[in-house]
Amino acid sequence: MRRIFHKLLSPEEALKIVEERIRSMRKPEMEVVKISDALGRILAEDIYAKVDSPPFDRAIVDGYAVKAEDVYQADEATPIKLKLIGEIEVGEIPRVELRSGECMEIATGAPMPRGSDAVVMVEYTKKIGDHVLIYRGVHPGENVAQTGSDITAGDLILRKGKRLNSRDIAVLAAVGYDRIMVYKRLRVALFSTGNEIIYPPNQLKPGKIYDVNGYVIPAMLRDLGVDADFLGILPDRYEVMLKAIRDALNEYDVVITSGSTSAGAGDVIYRIFEELGEIIVHGLRVKPGKPTIIGLSKNGKLLIGLPGFPLSCTMVFIHLIKPLLNKLIGAREEPCYRKVKARLPVRIETRGGKTWYIPVQMVDSPNGLMAYPILRGSGSASTLAESDGFIAIPEDILFIDEGGDVEVDLFEELRLPSVSIIGSHCPGIDLIVNR
Amino acid sequence: MRRIFHKLLSPEEALKIVEERIRSMRKPEMEVVKISDALGRILAEDIYAKVDSPPFDRAIVDGYAVKAEDVYQADEATPIKLKLIGEIEVGEIPRVELRSGECMEIATGAPMPRGSDAVVMVEYTKKIGDHVLIYRGVHPGENVAQTGSDITAGDLILRKGKRLNSRDIAVLAAVGYDRIMVYKRLRVALFSTGNEIIYPPNQLKPGKIYDVNGYVIPAMLRDLGVDADFLGILPDRYEVMLKAIRDALNEYDVVITSGSTSAGAGDVIYRIFEELGEIIVHGLRVKPGKPTIIGLSKNGKLLIGLPGFPLSCTMVFIHLIKPLLNKLIGAREEPCYRKVKARLPVRIETRGGKTWYIPVQMVDSPNGLMAYPILRGSGSASTLAESDGFIAIPEDILFIDEGGDVEVDLFEELRLPSVSIIGSHCPGIDLIVNR
Repeated sequence: MRRIFHKLLSPEEALKIVEERIRSMRKPEMEVVKISDALGRILAEDIYAKVDSPPFDRAIVDGYAVKAEDVYQADEATPIKLKLIGEIEVGEIPRVELRSGECMEIATGAPMPRGSDAVVMVEYTKKIGDHVLIYRGVHPGENVAQTGSDITAGDLILRKGKRLNSRDIAVLAAVGYDRIMVYKRLRVALFSTGNEIIYPPNQLKPGKIYDVNGYVIPAMLRDLGVDADFLGILPDRYEVMLKAIRDALNEYDVVITSGSTSAGAGDVIYRIFEELGEIIVHGLRVKPGKPTIIGLSKNGKLLIGLPGFPLSCTMVFIHLIKPLLNKLIGAREEPCYRKVKARLPVRIETRGGKTWYIPVQMVDSPNGLMAYPILRGSGSASTLAESDGFIAIPEDILFIDEGGDVEVDLFEELRLPSVSIIGSHCPGIDLIVNR
Repeated sequence: MRRIFHKLLSPEEALKIVEERIRSMRKPEMEVVKISDALGRILAEDIYAKVDSPPFDRAIVDGYAVKAEDVYQADEATPIKLKLIGEIEVGEIPRVELRSGECMEIATGAPMPRGSDAVVMVEYTKKIGDHVLIYRGVHPGENVAQTGSDITAGDLILRKGKRLNSRDIAVLAAVGYDRIMVYKRLRVALFSTGNEIIYPPNQLKPGKIYDVNGYVIPAMLRDLGVDADFLGILPDRYEVMLKAIRDALNEYDVVITSGSTSAGAGDVIYRIFEELGEIIVHGLRVKPGKPTIIGLSKNGKLLIGLPGFPLSCTMVFIHLIKPLLNKLIGAREEPCYRKVKARLPVRIETRGGKTWYIPVQMVDSPNGLMAYPILRGSGSASTLAESDGFIAIPEDILFIDEGGDVEVDLFEELRLPSVSIIGSHCPGIDLIVNR
């Protein structure tokens, strides 16, 4: 019997409905990890600074520690001569106290000696024997970072739910952490489905195609900080698929399938998800990507059936599944959308009625970033290779005019071949306009 | 003896000089990897399609395969009735040939039966017993993807030197590859240096600070697809550092140190690099980041001495070291710069004379993306936490006015809290303006 999608949801509606259900599910478990292993993990605790930063008054340039009042009148014409009483090493607390008329040699990052309140940069000095000529005045506090001026012990540094980037890890180290509490990684099982799907590089028999989603979905999941296991290709046979998916539900937090979700003759995923739990979303009001199914298993795990065509699968994943999984892993922030604003070089008409996903190639023109639509159908592998992202045109927008502003959801970071490495990419009005 | 930097180079000059030397170094070795392990690796061969894509004429929607000439006059008022002679499964080659007046049920992705040349979408049909009413005409080729129309066997798909993203891997699978040749990963050894540096969470004694660069540099290297081993903290003692770095040169392709590079009392990295090979760059005309040293060891390996302050270290790494390492690993493309254009909400004066790195926080305002400078000095840990990237203002630009256009080198992907997940981020002129 041919099944028609009866109640298609917009991506917004689908996200809202599934998020509500996720909220009632049990929270992710937590674990302690070393900060060197925490890149991309989701913080499960609020972090407060254990120490001041900087932890002592320190020089921020190489030069001489002085009393500012001794040298405030110094200039090129009338240098002021100070007595050099020693040298301060980084990592050591100076024992002596500076008195009026004296200075000490100090390196960047070294603690200020008692009695000093500023550093004169080495460029504005001249050392003669055990004296130093100072050619420029300083004000109190100049070239000095005060204890706790940047971060004070007890300050809230990072909030629970933060996805940790390399700078977060830097800050954790700076305020005294070597281990932190994070949410456990979500474990996702993945199947490709369909009698037509085979593994490369096996010989392609008539009617067969190579599996693609078994490679591309794990790559996207890894990018999200989620562990994905590709468990193989399943034939369009109800009993075989049911057993495989049921087994996976015992071991994994989420099961994702691709293919076999369409309303065509082979629609089996719907029936299997229904058997294993309940269907929450059956079909999206999007093009491409309509045959997307989301269910909840009886043991409270997410079941996701994605369209088979890799391009459709990728766009639905980025637009809908990524934010869902992001909630599930305890992340407070939005997932990385890598959005860029651009302009359409041509008019696009969508006729509305659904959200249209339009793959685009980004070109950096003298008039700014342009998003060129690539319209070759959702089965196109070359579109996947050549597009940089897509625009999602909502259903109440019937067209976007030539030159219209759009936002592009990038597939990955943009690498524009026209952007040169250093020099011409530097900011400054002229440089940008001329790029 | 106090050493002064005598010949500071601009980042552009430094990059050019080092790149010239890298060009004469031996090329990276190659290895074969499975495509499922190839994410982020650098392709070491040109890739040609092994098969057509699609490999056969196939339906791109669910519906009925027809001869277009049979139904071109069909509409809602005057449907055309066709005889249903069977059903085509995906993965199977249909045995029968379609004759005039006949149709076959077909699912998305299934091969077209001989004799058919178009597919009518199921939405525009009605099945009555063994006949189907067709309510909309189609033109020949409609809803069909022709063999090889997207990619033809033998087409050049990906070029040597490409950094493989998830969609590249998708395309490799689609055209029949399961293994490819990539360049071996670069192996980088990393040391933090300085008598003041200790590991968290050890008690901070007076004058000491926690190591940060030992965490943040490996994270940035991993992001570039490079294997990094943090080999620990070295004290500012010539013999100890010399031995550790010399040992590392035997095992690694690149040695990176941070700290101990300044012209202050503790400058030992310069002398060690000189002992182990030759100095190519001694100091950059940038602020912060001036005490950056690059050398080449006698066995032809890169020696990189970065400034100790994490913020300076990070900005020099992204602006200069990342593109250098990218060349070294065989990547043809520019590294991922994650640039965004933005406007300055305040006037910045740099006085020119060097490249100024200004950390900025990105704010998405009704007038577009704004880059707010954070000016707390290069030793600031909070700046590292709060900034999203930096602008590099070249030495011939003395100021940028309020409202001026700048390009921001992002530290990581931008996650603007003001961007909502779905809906308001969708393009369309109104939505973007109102965001």
